[in-house]
Amino acid sequence: MLFLRHRSCRHHSLLRIHIKFLSTTSSQPLHLPLSFPTYMIWGSNTSLGKTLISTGLSSSFLLSPLTTKKPHKFVYLKPIQTVPSLGTILRPRIGILGFYNLNFREENRFVKDGVNVVSELVCETLYAWKEAVSPHLAAEKENGVVEDSLVLETLEKCLRKEEDIKEEEMDVFCVVETAGGVASPGPSGTLQCDLYRPFRLPGVLMGDGRLGGISGTISAYESLKLRGYDIVAVVLEDHGLVNEVPLLSYLRNRVPVIVLPPVPKDMSNDLVDWFGDSDEAFNSLKEIMISAFSERILRLNDMAKKAGNTFWWPFTQHKLVPEEAVTVIDSRCGENFAIYKGQDNQFITQQFDGCASWWTQGPDATLQIELAREMGYTAARYGHVMFPENVYEPALECAELLLEGVGKGWASRTYYSDNGSTAIEIALKMAFRKFSFDNGLLSDFPNNTRTDKSVQLKVLALKGSYHGDTLGAMEAQAPSSYTGFLQQPWYTGRGLFLDPPTVSLSNNKWNLSLPEGMHCKNMIKKGMSFSTRDKIFDKSRDKSDLTGVYSSYISQKLLQYPGLKESIHVGALIIEPVIQGAGGMLMIDPLFQRVLVSECRSRNIPVIFDEVFTGFWRLGTESAAELLGCLPDIACFAKLMTGGVIPLAATLATDAVFDSFLGESKLKALLHGHSYTAHAMGCSAAAKSIKWLKDPQTNHNIISGQRLLREVCTIHCFCLLIAYQFPKVDVRTVSTIWNI
Amino acid sequence: MLFLRHRSCRHHSLLRIHIKFLSTTSSQPLHLPLSFPTYMIWGSNTSLGKTLISTGLSSSFLLSPLTTKKPHKFVYLKPIQTVPSLGTILRPRIGILGFYNLNFREENRFVKDGVNVVSELVCETLYAWKEAVSPHLAAEKENGVVEDSLVLETLEKCLRKEEDIKEEEMDVFCVVETAGGVASPGPSGTLQCDLYRPFRLPGVLMGDGRLGGISGTISAYESLKLRGYDIVAVVLEDHGLVNEVPLLSYLRNRVPVIVLPPVPKDMSNDLVDWFGDSDEAFNSLKEIMISAFSERILRLNDMAKKAGNTFWWPFTQHKLVPEEAVTVIDSRCGENFAIYKGQDNQFITQQFDGCASWWTQGPDATLQIELAREMGYTAARYGHVMFPENVYEPALECAELLLEGVGKGWASRTYYSDNGSTAIEIALKMAFRKFSFDNGLLSDFPNNTRTDKSVQLKVLALKGSYHGDTLGAMEAQAPSSYTGFLQQPWYTGRGLFLDPPTVSLSNNKWNLSLPEGMHCKNMIKKGMSFSTRDKIFDKSRDKSDLTGVYSSYISQKLLQYPGLKESIHVGALIIEPVIQGAGGMLMIDPLFQRVLVSECRSRNIPVIFDEVFTGFWRLGTESAAELLGCLPDIACFAKLMTGGVIPLAATLATDAVFDSFLGESKLKALLHGHSYTAHAMGCSAAAKSIKWLKDPQTNHNIISGQRLLREVCTIHCFCLLIAYQFPKVDVRTVSTIWNI
Repeated sequence: MLFLRHRSCRHHSLLRIHIKFLSTTSSQPLHLPLSFPTYMIWGSNTSLGKTLISTGLSSSFLLSPLTTKKPHKFVYLKPIQTVPSLGTILRPRIGILGFYNLNFREENRFVKDGVNVVSELVCETLYAWKEAVSPHLAAEKENGVVEDSLVLETLEKCLRKEEDIKEEEMDVFCVVETAGGVASPGPSGTLQCDLYRPFRLPGVLMGDGRLGGISGTISAYESLKLRGYDIVAVVLEDHGLVNEVPLLSYLRNRVPVIVLPPVPKDMSNDLVDWFGDSDEAFNSLKEIMISAFSERILRLNDMAKKAGNTFWWPFTQHKLVPEEAVTVIDSRCGENFAIYKGQDNQFITQQFDGCASWWTQGPDATLQIELAREMGYTAARYGHVMFPENVYEPALECAELLLEGVGKGWASRTYYSDNGSTAIEIALKMAFRKFSFDNGLLSDFPNNTRTDKSVQLKVLALKGSYHGDTLGAMEAQAPSSYTGFLQQPWYTGRGLFLDPPTVSLSNNKWNLSLPEGMHCKNMIKKGMSFSTRDKIFDKSRDKSDLTGVYSSYISQKLLQYPGLKESIHVGALIIEPVIQGAGGMLMIDPLFQRVLVSECRSRNIPVIFDEVFTGFWRLGTESAAELLGCLPDIACFAKLMTGGVIPLAATLATDAVFDSFLGESKLKALLHGHSYTAHAMGCSAAAKSIKWLKDPQTNHNIISGQRLLREVCTIHCFCLLIAYQFPKVDVRTVSTIWNI
Repeated sequence: MLFLRHRSCRHHSLLRIHIKFLSTTSSQPLHLPLSFPTYMIWGSNTSLGKTLISTGLSSSFLLSPLTTKKPHKFVYLKPIQTVPSLGTILRPRIGILGFYNLNFREENRFVKDGVNVVSELVCETLYAWKEAVSPHLAAEKENGVVEDSLVLETLEKCLRKEEDIKEEEMDVFCVVETAGGVASPGPSGTLQCDLYRPFRLPGVLMGDGRLGGISGTISAYESLKLRGYDIVAVVLEDHGLVNEVPLLSYLRNRVPVIVLPPVPKDMSNDLVDWFGDSDEAFNSLKEIMISAFSERILRLNDMAKKAGNTFWWPFTQHKLVPEEAVTVIDSRCGENFAIYKGQDNQFITQQFDGCASWWTQGPDATLQIELAREMGYTAARYGHVMFPENVYEPALECAELLLEGVGKGWASRTYYSDNGSTAIEIALKMAFRKFSFDNGLLSDFPNNTRTDKSVQLKVLALKGSYHGDTLGAMEAQAPSSYTGFLQQPWYTGRGLFLDPPTVSLSNNKWNLSLPEGMHCKNMIKKGMSFSTRDKIFDKSRDKSDLTGVYSSYISQKLLQYPGLKESIHVGALIIEPVIQGAGGMLMIDPLFQRVLVSECRSRNIPVIFDEVFTGFWRLGTESAAELLGCLPDIACFAKLMTGGVIPLAATLATDAVFDSFLGESKLKALLHGHSYTAHAMGCSAAAKSIKWLKDPQTNHNIISGQRLLREVCTIHCFCLLIAYQFPKVDVRTVSTIWNI
């Protein structure tokens, strides 16, 4: 005999809601078993027969010829159900239909170890409401709203229940049937396609075979794709309109379309004959689903090895990365990767993206969905279009937002490029030009575009700073293991590199460390320690003795240029304001950076801020310049600017800098560009993200991992986070950097 | 009295189909008037009442209080109609309903110049079929298929008819009502949302107020956005389910949702009362549409000026670009920009993207739609995830396709970066490392990562070549106006730059020009001229005398390194195979490049091919290496790789190159990376495009503008194309480059 389990979901629903208020939701990362196929059943509209698919699949799976000689278990989960009468809740249709079908046949009896083992059908409705309206309305009316996290948690538990079944003992197949259409709201109001997204289960879409159904099916399919779902088949009831033909053409024959016979309209029909007629269709659907599942697992199992054989990862010693150390990322959702673990029991689990994918990430899951839509829209509207002498909305809107935001009060021009490194190369070219004209190095222009051969320009920069990996950006960095002959034979180090004073937290106090060689004879101890981080940034420090110390230290260093050797000039200052990121998250004394800027400005040396890492609220203000309390002539932005989806960089500049490129000759223009300069998708993502991050309604202060620097009030917390992000980094190393 | 014009569309339809077979479709670029508001009316399903919206709008517009004191003209266009009876064809519903409404009132009478001037309602159905099924089925059954281009052409004509009406004389408002749902197939089978895309008219979406309608409306909205459309309002019939609440929440209150009263179900109802009750709703809809139109025009008119004030275009002397020279790009579709012209009569027209947006473009309009969907999917599934030690599907698939395609037979590793310039910087680092180890320059490693200070590495490169604008890429180029002190004070030119022999077409013959100083005393004339381009590439030339000439020329140049000055080595060869793009579309003698590669290989000098411009079928083969007939050790790809949507670059390398970075020390790894290295969207776009371009079914040989080099059989054709692309370039200059 066959087990049919039904649960009163109403009871469960209430119980679970009650629990919710008593305990916080589990912080355990998601654990999604992959030891058996699990599929979502989506509908392109309501009442198209999703449950018929589930039922047909259950019969097909449970009654299939038992090649594996193992009993089968079919798990039918309906997380959300709104039904017209309580009776139906208690006996979900699938149970009834399944019962009808399964009772017909006898071949499901097994004898194993002398015991009668039978196939099993489990039907479970997780949350149900009485009224047959959209779940969000029913939940509200019946005072039974269930939070998204709870729905997911309950669903996960149901799936995990099946995980312990050993593969040798039983074949499991699971479907999770949604309610209504793909974008019908769930009980909390979240659209179901968004609600279930963290699981990103593969799916089958019940299409619409009626008049207008081609459109509805395609749109529903697109809504699912637009949320990162994979659909392995579209199923359709035959209404005589051959809707499958245009659907197959749209899907380029890559996703199969299965047509079911017309369903009898007579409500008293028990559908037994119909299921008989649909046998073949459901069998092929089941085969498609099982083989898509196997292919997915095969690929997931192969990926780590293939990656090791085809990729050349940056900053990675391949010899030290064994196959098992490679992380297989199936998707990302908000701040979490969904990663595949294939060792013993295959499953998908979540991993916090602690270093925010090299500090590019910031958006929450909601912005990710919006950005996906925006990316689809922008790609469809523009693809990429050439920038020079052209204007298109995303490039203009983004430039306006940059100038009104991070460039407010100083910048008037936006120069686009592709990444931080190129933005820096452009900034250096801008600064050197400005300096050359201001200091008469190109006085003979335009008759002569060259200078005396012996004229050399250097940057003033801080040791430990990092500005990128292209040669120009590297030349502006002090020598390190990254710049030696082994890595970059062309590096010469074209800078005057100063040791900066740094601030670090120890014993609940922020302590200032001055570099060796800085004159501080008359230093008053009280200026060297701070009880809160805000005090370090206090502008009143500008009047302290330290200002003088910094000022004379800098002046003295600058004395050599263009002092003894008239031909060498310091043509630009370049700093990472407040924090040196790649250099080890070092906080530089903001007072020192302010003095540095002021000393350069008095010498007509243009000031570049490298805000690639610090820009866009990473430090709690839109720009680090704001926190530092002084303004640059040129600043570079990238990373978080696009909300963490695609590369884009911008170099902002003042009118005075821009003017040094104006003239009658095209050769005086800034001749630097990349093929995708100001590409529409990047600009569009940036425009959306800049607005999102600024809007108090949507900006949740950049999510935890990224809020790191803003909240870095205890070094211990920081070390913990670092340890979490880089399991291979010794926390003690980090502590040393922070001088604990 | 009011004019009501009706047309028998059936007649028109047949007539037009007939014309189609007699004449080719017009090659005139699209001309879309913007002197009056024109909106598409879309439906999220069939039979939701799109025509009610059109009708309501017509009443609202024609009967509105005449603040402007001008008569009004409402144009209702139904490009495609499938209707149940011929009677209905002859009298489209809107006419009937409009008639009812309009006859009620008298305030539309004007007296102008003593003549009675009245408002006007024009209803036009362009193509109609008898049977009430999807247009593609009706068209097929009734033997009346209409091609997409004809539908667009006819629609354009209808819109242009209204263009001559002077703004001072009459206010025009136009709606174009679609048939069925947003993605219902048109008569040719093309989905309507794709069919009308070249016009990209703003739209109003008729949503679904019924159960399941939230989902259908959202999905339909997403299908429209996914094709680059702007929707200014969603309209909904009230079915008592307050569907507008979740819709507004989904739309973040940015797109208004208008609710219409329930429509009487009684078919005999003449809807007069209903229209009366809906007055307010239609008035606000009309206001929203008119104000969105005005805002659009205002913005379009402002964009050129704002661009001139906020952008800093690359390679552009801003002083030479007046406001009127700025091109306002509203969208792109396939190989055309849709540009806005605002001078006298506002309109949108098409402009051929002749230089393929700096040679990034290649896809046709179909791939653009597919890529948009792919971009939405990938952004939703991954956003961006960190690359090192990780693997995710798009990065792996793209790497596999690159190694099986452009890297076939030689490459085994893929190194991702953001653009051609960074790909080159990486390639140089790879080559120098390989050379250093092969030639014992780092023999003391790992005890010492530096070499004798005096060791210097140079590249061997060809004059006129271009590899990018970051310093490292510039250093590999011969001196030019781009590299002088004015542009790049840090440039020193770290290369041995050779003058290459070039091939150019003149008088229907391809002539070879040798650079000055190349020894060719015994040269046989017949080897200097070719009747077809294929003969230049013929491998039999390898046995000609010229091979010896080239070989000794190169050997002699290389003699100086590490000859007299032992410390200077040529550590890499870098060439653009076959064509030097930015250098003026110069074709280098392929025999010379083959000899160059062979000479370098015999000296253990790694060979880099810069295929950024030539890669992916630009020259008719997947890689230029294939055309050239020899293989590199390292090659760089970008531009067309992503199908022309977003930046991504790849540096491919052999195992031997990769091995020179393997070891126990992390410091021996290649320490070069960018934040968005191997970003999922770029890899995904590349994977899709590489497959698309390779597939004979979808690759239409890269569209005309991009086929340029492949088809360059007459110089005149080339000049014409250049002139078309760069209206400001003197064709004679181009002719000079090609030695005519």
